[in-house]
This record gives sequence, C-alpha cells and structure tokens, in this order.
Amino acid sequence: MKQEWTFEDFLAIIQQRTVETGVCAHEKVFKIFQGKWNIHVLFQLTKYPSMRFGQLQKTIPQITNTMLIKTLKELEQFGVVQRIQYNEIPPHVEYSLSESGKAFLPIFYEIAKWGYKYLS
Amino acid sequence: MKQEWTFEDFLAIIQQRTVETGVCAHEKVFKIFQGKWNIHVLFQLTKYPSMRFGQLQKTIPQITNTMLIKTLKELEQFGVVQRIQYNEIPPHVEYSLSESGKAFLPIFYEIAKWGYKYLS
Repeated sequence: MKQEWTFEDFLAIIQQRTVETGVCAHEKVFKIFQGKWNIHVLFQLTKYPSMRFGQLQKTIPQITNTMLIKTLKELEQFGVVQRIQYNEIPPHVEYSLSESGKAFLPIFYEIAKWGYKYLS
Repeated sequence: MKQEWTFEDFLAIIQQRTVETGVCAHEKVFKIFQGKWNIHVLFQLTKYPSMRFGQLQKTIPQITNTMLIKTLKELEQFGVVQRIQYNEIPPHVEYSLSESGKAFLPIFYEIAKWGYKYLS
C-alpha cells in the first residue's frame, strides 16, 4: 500500500473490504481513542506548547488524579505524549505532544467539523 | 461561529483557547468514540450499505453478544446508526449508518493516514 492515499483511494480500499480487522492501522489508532480520557487529554495538549499536571486537571475538571496519571502514562506508552522533568528549583514536570501527537490535529479538525454540523 | 471553517481557522480557534471544555462540540463527539467498541462498530458499518447482527459479530470476533447489543443501542441513541426491522419471512434486522454516521468517513480517513504514517 502506498504511503499517501487520497480520500477516494481510501473509499475504494474500504469498499473492497481489504482492510482486515485486527491487523489494520485503524484498529491500532482506535486503541489510543479508547479509555475514557485519552482523547480529552490529547485535545487539551493541542492547545498549549506544554502543560503541567495541575493545568491539565483544571481544564478537565471531571477527571480524578488517579485517572489523569493513568491516562498520561498510557499516552506516553503510545508515543503521542512526552513527559519532560525539569530538575530546577522547584523541580517540575511538563507534558506535551510528541511529533506523532501533534499530527492528530487533522483528526481533531474533522471531528470538530462533524460536531458543529451534526450536534450544534 | 461560522459553519464551515478551514484548518487554519481551526488552529486559530484552538490557540485562542476559546473552545471551552464541556460545551464544545469536540467533547460531544468524544463521547461517541468512548466505549470500547463504538468506533470499531462504526468503522465496520462504513464498509457495507447495511449489516446484520451476525455479520457484524463475524467482522469483530473479539466482541461479545451483550457488548454488541449495548454498542448498537448506544450508537442508535447518538443518531449515527439506523436499525431497520424487516417483517419478512424470516424477519430480520439490518444496521446501517445514518446520514451523520456516513459523515464520519473523513474522520476515519484522517485516522487511517495517521495510523499508516506513525504505526506501520
């Protein structure tokens, strides 16, 4: 499969049903979107160059401490979030999107367009 | 906010941080993506004009009966999946994407592009 295909290519691939369950790239990306908070945290991180834990908590008031820790660890494991520890005084940690995390923006753009069309 | 904005508009909106948590359309769409199977079932339904319950089960072998029933009900409530009962002999039910469900395709396209770039 070529690296860059158009929307028309994509439709053709889907309609040929050659995209197999379990092995296709979709399924792996869906894993990142699963989990109650992953996509929320990713979206917040698109808004700032980097964020501290407390700042993230404020922008997602419903999330618990434990869940935010778990979510950030998971997103780090997926390679979409970077955790940088600054050993200054006082020491602190900042979270930001990795290169692949930043590349989620076109997905969020399509999600936003869909939302405004069908939910507002 | 205007109905159709470009990717550049979108970036500007995000960077102005005027998109508030809880009220923004993103958050509502994220709800559709939550739940272990919602996005998988939606994606399978993009491949066929309509599908029967058993056919969906075959394409997602890991899903249980109960979870597939729950997922389909949830997607129906979100208005993205249609359930049509045919009172023929034998009677049967078919599931398909609604108009708004079909409009998920550009999102899946961006997801697929991301996946092939960063996961394959």
